Amino acid sequence: MNYVRNTWYVAGWAQDFELNKPVSIAILGEPVVIWRNSENALAALENRCVHRLAPLSLGRCEGQKLRCMYHGLLYDRTGAVTEIPGQDLIPPNAKVRAYPVREKHSWVWVWMGDAAKADRAAIPPSLALDDPGYRLKAGQLDYTAHYLLIDDNLLDLSHLSFAHEKTLGLDMPQWADQRPRLAPIERGLHFERWLADHPPRGFMKKTLGERVDVFNRYDFVFPGIFLQRTGFYPPGTAQASGGQAPEAAPLFWRIDEQAVTPIGPRASRYFYAAGARTDDIEPDRLERLFAVTEVAFNEDKTLIEAQQKLIDLDPERRMLPTSLDAGPTQFRKMVDGLARQPAG
Amino acid sequence: MNYVRNTWYVAGWAQDFELNKPVSIAILGEPVVIWRNSENALAALENRCVHRLAPLSLGRCEGQKLRCMYHGLLYDRTGAVTEIPGQDLIPPNAKVRAYPVREKHSWVWVWMGDAAKADRAAIPPSLALDDPGYRLKAGQLDYTAHYLLIDDNLLDLSHLSFAHEKTLGLDMPQWADQRPRLAPIERGLHFERWLADHPPRGFMKKTLGERVDVFNRYDFVFPGIFLQRTGFYPPGTAQASGGQAPEAAPLFWRIDEQAVTPIGPRASRYFYAAGARTDDIEPDRLERLFAVTEVAFNEDKTLIEAQQKLIDLDPERRMLPTSLDAGPTQFRKMVDGLARQPAG
Amino acid sequence: MNYVRNTWYVAGWAQDFELNKPVSIAILGEPVVIWRNSENALAALENRCVHRLAPLSLGRCEGQKLRCMYHGLLYDRTGAVTEIPGQDLIPPNAKVRAYPVREKHSWVWVWMGDAAKADRAAIPPSLALDDPGYRLKAGQLDYTAHYLLIDDNLLDLSHLSFAHEKTLGLDMPQWADQRPRLAPIERGLHFERWLADHPPRGFMKKTLGERVDVFNRYDFVFPGIFLQRTGFYPPGTAQASGGQAPEAAPLFWRIDEQAVTPIGPRASRYFYAAGARTDDIEPDRLERLFAVTEVAFNEDKTLIEAQQKLIDLDPERRMLPTSLDAGPTQFRKMVDGLARQPAG
Repeated sequence: MNYVRNTWYVAGWAQDFELNKPVSIAILGEPVVIWRNSENALAALENRCVHRLAPLSLGRCEGQKLRCMYHGLLYDRTGAVTEIPGQDLIPPNAKVRAYPVREKHSWVWVWMGDAAKADRAAIPPSLALDDPGYRLKAGQLDYTAHYLLIDDNLLDLSHLSFAHEKTLGLDMPQWADQRPRLAPIERGLHFERWLADHPPRGFMKKTLGERVDVFNRYDFVFPGIFLQRTGFYPPGTAQASGGQAPEAAPLFWRIDEQAVTPIGPRASRYFYAAGARTDDIEPDRLERLFAVTEVAFNEDKTLIEAQQKLIDLDPERRMLPTSLDAGPTQFRKMVDGLARQPAG
Repeated sequence: MNYVRNTWYVAGWAQDFELNKPVSIAILGEPVVIWRNSENALAALENRCVHRLAPLSLGRCEGQKLRCMYHGLLYDRTGAVTEIPGQDLIPPNAKVRAYPVREKHSWVWVWMGDAAKADRAAIPPSLALDDPGYRLKAGQLDYTAHYLLIDDNLLDLSHLSFAHEKTLGLDMPQWADQRPRLAPIERGLHFERWLADHPPRGFMKKTLGERVDVFNRYDFVFPGIFLQRTGFYPPGTAQASGGQAPEAAPLFWRIDEQAVTPIGPRASRYFYAAGARTDDIEPDRLERLFAVTEVAFNEDKTLIEAQQKLIDLDPERRMLPTSLDAGPTQFRKMVDGLARQPAG
Repeated sequence: MNYVRNTWYVAGWAQDFELNKPVSIAILGEPVVIWRNSENALAALENRCVHRLAPLSLGRCEGQKLRCMYHGLLYDRTGAVTEIPGQDLIPPNAKVRAYPVREKHSWVWVWMGDAAKADRAAIPPSLALDDPGYRLKAGQLDYTAHYLLIDDNLLDLSHLSFAHEKTLGLDMPQWADQRPRLAPIERGLHFERWLADHPPRGFMKKTLGERVDVFNRYDFVFPGIFLQRTGFYPPGTAQASGGQAPEAAPLFWRIDEQAVTPIGPRASRYFYAAGARTDDIEPDRLERLFAVTEVAFNEDKTLIEAQQKLIDLDPERRMLPTSLDAGPTQFRKMVDGLARQPAG
């Protein structure tokens, strides 16, 4: 399938882009170099010098510019070569592609399509890691798999009862037995569901008591932005709410924010943060919550990379959709539509 | 060349299939999951869930069934899905292929062709590792090579004089200088030969004396079942037998039983056991005999994997058969015939 | 692009070919075995037994001959099989290709084309590592890259100012800012240039003083033979020489001799020696000079292997030549001509 070009892709955690240190990443199979110059401004260029096709990410930041450290061509932030050592004339085609790049909340976003259509307002809302109202911890994981397999996973949380039965699944068969409500949103889907009468574990058991009702909701937006809130409520709240979203604030809120970025046909990068409101969680408990979360994400990785290998072994083999697949099916249909739109 | 489907393939040593622990193996490039359920019965299915193509080998055994631990589909031993979480209807095509699987002696065998033709009696005879009459030790080795290159090796023991001159070759040029007698057997070849007037080495020298006559014979059956007996006799027995098979029991019998399984076009698994009659060998001597044997098998692996690389570097290059090649040539002709038979 | 066949290629340092130890190397994608027999004579054959295509490099040297240690075929130095175990008749096509091979100075050279055209005199002149007039240290490095990318690098030393600014570049922007004089030579190019008014570093600062004029010259001959002399002169010599080659001997001569060998389409081997006249350098200083040189060669390797990956990611992408590229451009044009010549 074609990639969708006119979209913001997460290139990394903002904190990982240090001053004057170019970062190499491939997005949609294209080599990109991103750097934060000495004035703290980000720039993103095609990561391939026009001269001899060496990577600019091995280059040196000079003020607002980036110099290729193979033979010294100097690039400005628009991708234009402004200096060729020992030569006065700069050919007009001495230029690499520049990509719109924005830092918003805690992610750096790159627009891979028509620059004229890049709209900062289209970047999905997420939390900043340094928001004082929250304690969040961030990580990332590289997959040898197509990004839509990871999206499928996040669009169907029924797998929590099986793949994560001992980690995130909370021993709750309801993840699989009961279907969430879905509603379309801009370039994505909104999910919500109640999981009633659940025994909390670990530190939550101490603070929340023997039973809780859990309200889980998330937005999932192309290309793979997952913004989830899981609220823990006193038992009975699910019924009192008539199965709808609760009005009261929860006793505890688990926050999960994730992004999936297509690196290439069989490579994806998965960014994730997890945490809770500052008042709800102490730093050491956040560490434990995050550690369990990373165990679970490696459970996914094992399954999805094996799934990718089986798909590649027999690419003609079709999946068999079940009622579990409302989310993945609707989302993939939307992605097909996006991929057919002209990139220009 | 096409694979031969209507055949039993060794999937592993029976002892390596523990209760309720699914094992993943590819045979003929197909993913297979094999498990021994809580009633000790084996089952073998295509290792790919119909739902989202995840491997069932990461699943959980439940009684006689196997559950996919991605989204929870439950399979019975015929490959039929019997449960989809949160859904009552099971589509009739929710089914994966089931393979006939048998445990016989100490190997687990899988039939990769038409199940109606699977005949347990067609499994070649081999020794059980726990036969009280023998002391045997078992191992296995993965090759990055086509299985017929390993078969070629076993079908022409002249290489013992060279590849294994310091290990299994026993310093005997006769392996190469003299041709064995060959006779066709069902789906294979029978080999036998005398190697006369040989000085035994190691512990055999102590028990057998300065010189022995050695009678070597083996059956080699498709896809790569090697059942060998090497008898050590008093000097003069070869001549007294007129070059034919001896009537008397040997002073010492070396037993070798091996199986080659095609995993994929450039992957094979080699199973082997070596030993002797219980009365002939003490456990520590078996350890030494087996250690030398494994050194020799790694000599083969080095040669055969290098040979495979050279073949792939120039696939048009033809081998030049010599009189050494009667075994490999006859066997490959038979394999060509088997591969042309319809699989159904 | 086709390989150039009628050329001497460096197969290794002479010292690395021990008596009776066959060495495996691929050149132009062809498997070659080279050995030095017990009479110290080199031979080079196609590294693939006619019988079952096993590598002869795993074989055993026997006098002037080489025996395949899979099934025992014996080869003479012309590539003819002279013995097949257990068989009297040797088929006339039992023969592998023999390559002309010569040891000259400290390299072993193999001719990959028409043997009738192999002319020892066409081997470029280089120093012997054991020449008492010099102290030289040798090494080698394997690249995952096409050999012409390494040639490009050596044909345009402007990269010293950038890629090696802290190692071989000597902090001199002149490498990039000033163009060397080029002149065609037999199958190659001659380069020379003055780099005036340069502050020496390290031990050279102590012996040469605060400033020197540097005269750099080298021949670069197909397939990648780089023979360089860098002379250090008293300040003012550049001007006094009118920019031409100096007549006087330098205060210090740095010697660099290198060879690039195409192993395959994306594999090359890079041989290098560096040093100085014996009177100019103590052994411990040679060690330091060589250590810095190897750091620099790894700087090249990082850049060139990344460049190769970017080329393969989009093979249609063209380089954009600049005035830096006179050397690479002229050389590649010459290589195109050589590659079009018939090999026979």
